[in-house]
Amino acid sequence: LRSKLPDVGTSIFSVMTQLAQEHGAINLAQGFPDYDPPQALLEALAHHVCTSGHQQYAPMPGLPRLREAISQKTAHVYGVAAPDPATEITVTSGATEALYAVLAAVVHPGDEVLVLEPAYDLYSPAIRLQGGVPVYVPLTLPDFRPDWDQVRASLTPRTRLVMLNTPNNPTGAVLTPHDLTTLAELLRDTNTLVLSDEVYEHMVFDGHAHHSVLQHPELRERAFVLSSFGKTYHATGWKVGYCIAPPPLTTELRRVHQFVTFSVSTPTQHALADVLPDTALFEMLPTFYQQKRDLFRELLAPTGLRLLPVAGAYFQVADFRGLAPGTDDVTFARRLTQEAGVAVVPISAFYHDGQDHGLVRFCFAKQDSTLQAAAQRLQQAL
Amino acid sequence: LRSKLPDVGTSIFSVMTQLAQEHGAINLAQGFPDYDPPQALLEALAHHVCTSGHQQYAPMPGLPRLREAISQKTAHVYGVAAPDPATEITVTSGATEALYAVLAAVVHPGDEVLVLEPAYDLYSPAIRLQGGVPVYVPLTLPDFRPDWDQVRASLTPRTRLVMLNTPNNPTGAVLTPHDLTTLAELLRDTNTLVLSDEVYEHMVFDGHAHHSVLQHPELRERAFVLSSFGKTYHATGWKVGYCIAPPPLTTELRRVHQFVTFSVSTPTQHALADVLPDTALFEMLPTFYQQKRDLFRELLAPTGLRLLPVAGAYFQVADFRGLAPGTDDVTFARRLTQEAGVAVVPISAFYHDGQDHGLVRFCFAKQDSTLQAAAQRLQQAL
Ligand SMILES: CSCCC(=O)C(=O)O
Ligand SMILES: CSCCC(=O)C(=O)O
Repeated sequence: LRSKLPDVGTSIFSVMTQLAQEHGAINLAQGFPDYDPPQALLEALAHHVCTSGHQQYAPMPGLPRLREAISQKTAHVYGVAAPDPATEITVTSGATEALYAVLAAVVHPGDEVLVLEPAYDLYSPAIRLQGGVPVYVPLTLPDFRPDWDQVRASLTPRTRLVMLNTPNNPTGAVLTPHDLTTLAELLRDTNTLVLSDEVYEHMVFDGHAHHSVLQHPELRERAFVLSSFGKTYHATGWKVGYCIAPPPLTTELRRVHQFVTFSVSTPTQHALADVLPDTALFEMLPTFYQQKRDLFRELLAPTGLRLLPVAGAYFQVADFRGLAPGTDDVTFARRLTQEAGVAVVPISAFYHDGQDHGLVRFCFAKQDSTLQAAAQRLQQAL
Repeated sequence: LRSKLPDVGTSIFSVMTQLAQEHGAINLAQGFPDYDPPQALLEALAHHVCTSGHQQYAPMPGLPRLREAISQKTAHVYGVAAPDPATEITVTSGATEALYAVLAAVVHPGDEVLVLEPAYDLYSPAIRLQGGVPVYVPLTLPDFRPDWDQVRASLTPRTRLVMLNTPNNPTGAVLTPHDLTTLAELLRDTNTLVLSDEVYEHMVFDGHAHHSVLQHPELRERAFVLSSFGKTYHATGWKVGYCIAPPPLTTELRRVHQFVTFSVSTPTQHALADVLPDTALFEMLPTFYQQKRDLFRELLAPTGLRLLPVAGAYFQVADFRGLAPGTDDVTFARRLTQEAGVAVVPISAFYHDGQDHGLVRFCFAKQDSTLQAAAQRLQQAL
């Protein structure tokens, strides 16, 4: 049996979560909240689970009433024309399935896909499973900005897709309107598409707004834009996300989606459709997460870790080289887990070649008491 | 944008379901029950949805307690050694995702995959998306038996996988122990794997037993065996299935599964783990569905449709040529939907080349009153 992904091991998130469990460490590695979804959403799901007739297949592209709610929410949040639920919105088994299905739908063998690194660990294997060739462009340190000249230099007639992720996991950086305009200019007169992973769309701080590819008409017409109810509603275990794309792109996505999972949990879609019109539930997220970011940074200040800026998402990247010179990030991450009792992810896991910049990632989507307990352990250990 | 599946339209199940809705037809086309899952299962899910801490990512291969329950159930039902939950069982987003992920994990470009036709409509596109080449072998009419000589003649050194489906959708035929032994002999000394889609494992009639590939040691060591909680618990909309395979095959499956959907709804997995030990819930299924099969056949007897035998699954195939000679099956299916008010699936949809044998498929996983109403409409129209 010849493996198609011989170099792929268990995902770093699973590995660190398991290591955390083995050592009784506080898990700030895998990105998920340690609090529950809003009560209204839980009650809605419990209700629909007990509603006769809501337990069979949803329509393949998603429940019409959920797609309608997504359409209205999108128009409301971004001040853009509402995407057409019938031809532009597809509900998926989490943003993960959306990412995979977009890649499977548009990447032909030999196509190049431009990936800005550090990048989420599924991008590269999912591209390679299609016979695609990932072309890596580094985000420039220390602020993890895209270098658009290098992007320009990396585009070829074979570039099928450019992958964006804003707010960014793991770096916390966000793209600016100027970034989007620059990319639009680079792609003008090409057939290159864009996949914009915007699952942390509601977690942008310091009064700034998230700039969505949906707000940029020239990019939007060639883009798949992804979001995730798991992130927005503290329900990562429910596995519901969605993709907004122009009709011809949506057609291709659905051609694959119907064979990858066909449809998504019907009662869960009903519950999400119930609460999505309540904009207060996501409009509180920037304040909610900014408070956690600020608390966590304050708590970590005495540790000697150098904290990089966090503009969005729910991750804090920290440079540990002042504390442990010469230690590689995987070793440092394991040590923190085993000895300090706080699990983190080494940033080298987000580089295809395991580049080590002496950085680790903490997830701060945790109760204040969890962040406090973790910081106390870190202060003692470091 | 060059489509990777230019010839794939909307799935026949979606098309017929939509046509049924437009014409107020009773939907016997798409395979799903019009009754709810067992009350104990609904209550278990409502409970876990409201259980703090059960709303975040499940482990990538599935909740340990659900995999443990699957292992014990498998040993109990098939009298075989319990598969190892840690290395042989993976929970998937429905059997659909399992099918897709197995194909993506093992089919390299140029590999051949043997498909017995008629076959479920996702097999061929999912194979082609991997760059694989489906090799079709017809099940022989009128009883839809595999012709093992033709299978033998179709095997080549490039055959990566043989796809089985027993009990069969759409034909209702089941494989015998002799079939499995014959296949095992054909595959001895080859590297060819087996994917056995056994989602209707608990719907076999007339006192016969389902013969699982899991019960055949020689096949089992090269097989991915799939099942579906949606089928077993009348919960097609929940999208939870699983795959049992030896450790090296499970490793490859999980390598892909982690990037296709990562994990499956946590509260839903907890609920399934609660009820799976109650064997009575699935041990009643043969009687339950046999009564429906018998009722439906009795009700259709006066219509002039020729009913093919149904050994398993929840579909009745009928030959309409006595009633509408010269009519193709797609036209007949549309007419039944539009004029008789009963939606069915034309069997040509299960052949890659649209072969027409004058057959349509009815789903009898419906309340008796639904079957009666449908039969009344058919009696009037035919
Ligand atoms: C699917 S597990 C990984 C969760 C996540 O998004 C992360 O930790 O980066
Ligand atoms: C995923 S919709 C199709 C349901 C089904 O298995 C069938 O109708 O054959």
